Amino acid sequence: MTNAFTTSGMFGALLCDPKIAEEFGTIAFTDRMLAFEAAWTQALAACGFVSELDANKALVAIKAFPRQNLGQGSDRDGLPVPALVSALKFTLDAGAARAVHSGATSQDVMDTAMVLTCLSVMDEMTARLTRIIAGFDAVLEKFGDDALMARTRMQAALPANVVLRVDAWRRPLTEHLVRAADVRTQLSVVQIGGPIGSREIPKPHVADCASQVAEMLGLSLGPVWHSDRSRIVTFGHWLTLVAGSLGKIGQDVALMAQQGIDDIALSGGGGSSAMAHKQNPVDAEMMIALARYVAGQQGILGQAMIHEQERSGAAWALEWLTLPAMAEATGAALNHAEILIAAIERIGEPD
Amino acid sequence: MTNAFTTSGMFGALLCDPKIAEEFGTIAFTDRMLAFEAAWTQALAACGFVSELDANKALVAIKAFPRQNLGQGSDRDGLPVPALVSALKFTLDAGAARAVHSGATSQDVMDTAMVLTCLSVMDEMTARLTRIIAGFDAVLEKFGDDALMARTRMQAALPANVVLRVDAWRRPLTEHLVRAADVRTQLSVVQIGGPIGSREIPKPHVADCASQVAEMLGLSLGPVWHSDRSRIVTFGHWLTLVAGSLGKIGQDVALMAQQGIDDIALSGGGGSSAMAHKQNPVDAEMMIALARYVAGQQGILGQAMIHEQERSGAAWALEWLTLPAMAEATGAALNHAEILIAAIERIGEPD
Amino acid sequence: MTNAFTTSGMFGALLCDPKIAEEFGTIAFTDRMLAFEAAWTQALAACGFVSELDANKALVAIKAFPRQNLGQGSDRDGLPVPALVSALKFTLDAGAARAVHSGATSQDVMDTAMVLTCLSVMDEMTARLTRIIAGFDAVLEKFGDDALMARTRMQAALPANVVLRVDAWRRPLTEHLVRAADVRTQLSVVQIGGPIGSREIPKPHVADCASQVAEMLGLSLGPVWHSDRSRIVTFGHWLTLVAGSLGKIGQDVALMAQQGIDDIALSGGGGSSAMAHKQNPVDAEMMIALARYVAGQQGILGQAMIHEQERSGAAWALEWLTLPAMAEATGAALNHAEILIAAIERIGEPD
Amino acid sequence: MTNAFTTSGMFGALLCDPKIAEEFGTIAFTDRMLAFEAAWTQALAACGFVSELDANKALVAIKAFPRQNLGQGSDRDGLPVPALVSALKFTLDAGAARAVHSGATSQDVMDTAMVLTCLSVMDEMTARLTRIIAGFDAVLEKFGDDALMARTRMQAALPANVVLRVDAWRRPLTEHLVRAADVRTQLSVVQIGGPIGSREIPKPHVADCASQVAEMLGLSLGPVWHSDRSRIVTFGHWLTLVAGSLGKIGQDVALMAQQGIDDIALSGGGGSSAMAHKQNPVDAEMMIALARYVAGQQGILGQAMIHEQERSGAAWALEWLTLPAMAEATGAALNHAEILIAAIERIGEPD
Repeated sequence: MTNAFTTSGMFGALLCDPKIAEEFGTIAFTDRMLAFEAAWTQALAACGFVSELDANKALVAIKAFPRQNLGQGSDRDGLPVPALVSALKFTLDAGAARAVHSGATSQDVMDTAMVLTCLSVMDEMTARLTRIIAGFDAVLEKFGDDALMARTRMQAALPANVVLRVDAWRRPLTEHLVRAADVRTQLSVVQIGGPIGSREIPKPHVADCASQVAEMLGLSLGPVWHSDRSRIVTFGHWLTLVAGSLGKIGQDVALMAQQGIDDIALSGGGGSSAMAHKQNPVDAEMMIALARYVAGQQGILGQAMIHEQERSGAAWALEWLTLPAMAEATGAALNHAEILIAAIERIGEPD
Repeated sequence: MTNAFTTSGMFGALLCDPKIAEEFGTIAFTDRMLAFEAAWTQALAACGFVSELDANKALVAIKAFPRQNLGQGSDRDGLPVPALVSALKFTLDAGAARAVHSGATSQDVMDTAMVLTCLSVMDEMTARLTRIIAGFDAVLEKFGDDALMARTRMQAALPANVVLRVDAWRRPLTEHLVRAADVRTQLSVVQIGGPIGSREIPKPHVADCASQVAEMLGLSLGPVWHSDRSRIVTFGHWLTLVAGSLGKIGQDVALMAQQGIDDIALSGGGGSSAMAHKQNPVDAEMMIALARYVAGQQGILGQAMIHEQERSGAAWALEWLTLPAMAEATGAALNHAEILIAAIERIGEPD
Repeated sequence: MTNAFTTSGMFGALLCDPKIAEEFGTIAFTDRMLAFEAAWTQALAACGFVSELDANKALVAIKAFPRQNLGQGSDRDGLPVPALVSALKFTLDAGAARAVHSGATSQDVMDTAMVLTCLSVMDEMTARLTRIIAGFDAVLEKFGDDALMARTRMQAALPANVVLRVDAWRRPLTEHLVRAADVRTQLSVVQIGGPIGSREIPKPHVADCASQVAEMLGLSLGPVWHSDRSRIVTFGHWLTLVAGSLGKIGQDVALMAQQGIDDIALSGGGGSSAMAHKQNPVDAEMMIALARYVAGQQGILGQAMIHEQERSGAAWALEWLTLPAMAEATGAALNHAEILIAAIERIGEPD
Repeated sequence: MTNAFTTSGMFGALLCDPKIAEEFGTIAFTDRMLAFEAAWTQALAACGFVSELDANKALVAIKAFPRQNLGQGSDRDGLPVPALVSALKFTLDAGAARAVHSGATSQDVMDTAMVLTCLSVMDEMTARLTRIIAGFDAVLEKFGDDALMARTRMQAALPANVVLRVDAWRRPLTEHLVRAADVRTQLSVVQIGGPIGSREIPKPHVADCASQVAEMLGLSLGPVWHSDRSRIVTFGHWLTLVAGSLGKIGQDVALMAQQGIDDIALSGGGGSSAMAHKQNPVDAEMMIALARYVAGQQGILGQAMIHEQERSGAAWALEWLTLPAMAEATGAALNHAEILIAAIERIGEPD
């Protein structure tokens, strides 16, 4: 949820995206933390650090985790992992407890779960982008040759066709799909550093253990990135580009829908409580607002690069405050774009 | 809620503030929108625009409003007011329906309800500030004369006493209380502009009607401010100052709690999933993160000043995306400050 | 200068304001630092800390200061004051040297000089605001009753007159003049804290000495504010409001100047290298860009509230990086507004 | 120059970088605009749009351009290109004048010159990064095995060695060098769109002409990107990552240099005007401030994605206000890093 007001229900899905919000919710995120712990336990067994029997007991506990409220633990510890690990170990004997989390640290769990979340969010977003691009293809087929005045610096410039503008909307989105592949590669790195990022525990099996965990989670293994937040900030950058390109489309549509310009006709459109004749280009407006919001958050997320020492509490929390909201806002903007395209009844002027 | 992740329950109240969130939630905000509509209806009757009888019918409908989901209406209209007004009028005859919202516009309702919300948020925050200041008074009484090395530019400067630092924490908070009075005055202005901000309808009673509405809501009457967002941005500025001063305290405490510096001892403190001996200064860390978050949002909220024409959709939505989250984050920081002060077991070194 | 590109000369005064830039330049700022040092020396003498003779020798040196390059000193010390003080003392005997800066600290000098600079900048800006308001009065007198379509949410709403829109431009500016008085009061406080903010040196005359310095500089004396940057951030807020209100005007004018809308006619207007028929609303565009720039900087300046311990180096430098650029950008926007108003040939439609 | 204050001379090179500033200055930038015009003229001749003779006359004029002040033109037109083109054509006969800029638009010139500037800036920055990485290699060789307490969440965690921290400083910088290659590819695209981005003029030779211009300038030819600012914002993102990683180093060094922690010893260090014994970690502080500055600017630069219609004036100017300052601030941070590394006399504790 972007915030209590915009997700209060009063605003419907104008400024939020329940599907993306769910990715950051307790169930999905806890499942991903548990996926890390399960992979870790299996790797500890495979490397001979714990017995298969103990690992299996631990896996049963991980599987059975009731997703109980971890909030109290977070209030105390600053994040939910210590309480999660305690709860997992609670019913296990000492041997099986050793098969849980040994050698890992909270940030390993959180960051890896966050990476898995971001990748899942990207799946959803690239699917939406693909549909939006197809939508613009259909718009182009239908209206591409119709006349449209080109405008530069807010002024009529030269007569042109619809294809000029719609292709300029569509093209950056296809390029963001290309960029997505590189962002996925940058993101798809498991976080395994242990308490201080030295990845030394449990010796001597650490290297094997780490690559097994990565493989089980479908991620690659690279150097520890506890204090290097570049990949997270790069994901935020991709969101900024996507939301920004949609904001540009929203801005153009809002300008085109003005009486006197009349370059577009949209079905639906928001009603006014005072003026029955009005039809407001609501989706376009929201795309602008969401783009400005996401772009601005990136200026805050970037502050999280200044991560103290081996692992930071303060800088890290800044990621949690911004990145999920950026993802949800970008998701909402993608939804508006799909609605907007479907609502185009005319664009430009047929000859 | 600051976002889906931080308010998922996994994080407890680390990065959110349920009490402030509630102020922006459906129930509280709808009640304030209804308070506007009720005052408006009463004023329409008092000014003779509608009959007492029609007004009373309308008031019954307003009182009985089931707080049904306005989300669908927002999805269509870009905000919840048109659906609210339709629902209110739905069961009324034409005369009584005329006693609802006539001459008002959606933004009148939303902005006035937002102002009432901000004032209520300020009440809660100034109460917390007052308790925090009292908390520092107690800290000063207990430890004020103890020795503390003054540090400038991150370096030991000269020997001093605890009072030097704690007074520098406390003083800005007392000044923010003074500033609060002026911010309240700036905020306490009803929004009455009608469809285009000309406040002309219903003639000829508009002036009387407007002052009655203001009086009933405990607000003052000034010029229309549909497109002048200064008072909203000024409230955001106050939140930035409050959160910023708390962030400074958090930063200092995190620095004081370092081993080797040991200028403070705190009870509680966050546990680590990997290192049982650690005690992390969680509240202090969160105060830093929340301050950076709020300060950054102000840079986005300020973009909402660029409000198109008589009333904007896009710039306005940017306020909804940022201001409630800023309030909630500032509220969370105030909560952390209260907890932090109560946890101080030692500060400085007794002689 | 806003940056090397925008102040290269290639851009004229589009995105900079030489007059405001001068206020932050070496000559003006060094003069204000010297004004502090001169007042300090006189106060030291008046309080009996040094002899009149020594103070006079010191004043001669202060007056004769060649404004030599302090850059090398800053490269070493992180700010120009230590080199300035060394240079002042260099030719003085020990007694007279004691009459320079004793008991003061670099931040006292810098912050006080900054406050004097901000006040001077406000003088210039309020003068410009007053001229702009008068300009709008003249526009209103000439065109106020002409017809103009009111527009909300980027859509034609209801027929209205020019006065509706122009008054909505003018009114916030008059309110910013009112706000300016309070900002001046908040800013007009001398910084006197000494090395660690305890204002203890030189004992026992500190209180008298401090009030004399304040009085000589036309400032009031309040508590030390070394680590409380509220007043600086509040000045930034005022700049954000001013620039934001001008950005709103620019946005409206750019929208009004569109072919098909034609709500305004401007003389001059930018030429195109490719389309001879075009007339771009350059001043309006720049007002939008400058408003977004200033609003965004405020989100960075607010980070400076998180000021470490008794005095920070890092957070403080963030003020130097942002505030002067915000002032200059706001100044440039005010200049554009004056040009824009003078260029209005028609607004709305005469009956 | 980052702004008038920080580049006044008073601050030396603390918060600016004359070498990077020069890249955005009149001489370097005008030379790059002329390089575009020269390539364009040659391509027009090669494609047969103008005669070799006319092209040669035009090239002579381009070469002889006195770099006269284009500021007045910008004040009128909103950018320097129309005045530049007029000045180039002024002394040419009609045929030769046709060999200048025909079919190009101002934005083609500015954006291409900006791309060339950014690439040159990247050359300088990657050279500095390479030296910094080598500097850390030397630090590691000398001190890598020395003892250093690992710290997480601002608390002592576990004993470790210097290599743990310094490698975490060095590694992101090497990854930014890898990222630089992709950013260069994204940036190295000529801008050729003509007045409205349709790249239709001069027909029928446009395709050949465009690829020749690209080749002559060492750039690739892709689709028009007049209204898609992704590549510019992506360059800003790279600067944010570089400055952010340096800010993290600065933050760590400032923390390590605290008395009581004493994890590092630096030669030099800033003096205080009041406390002769102090040695402030000036370079480290500035690296923090510059990182926060650059990160925040990125949140403003991202707003430039919302580019109106075929070409925007307002959104485009926002790039000019932010990007050069980001480059210069990142450059200054790189300079500080080089100085800082050279000043390391001890890090950690030898056994």
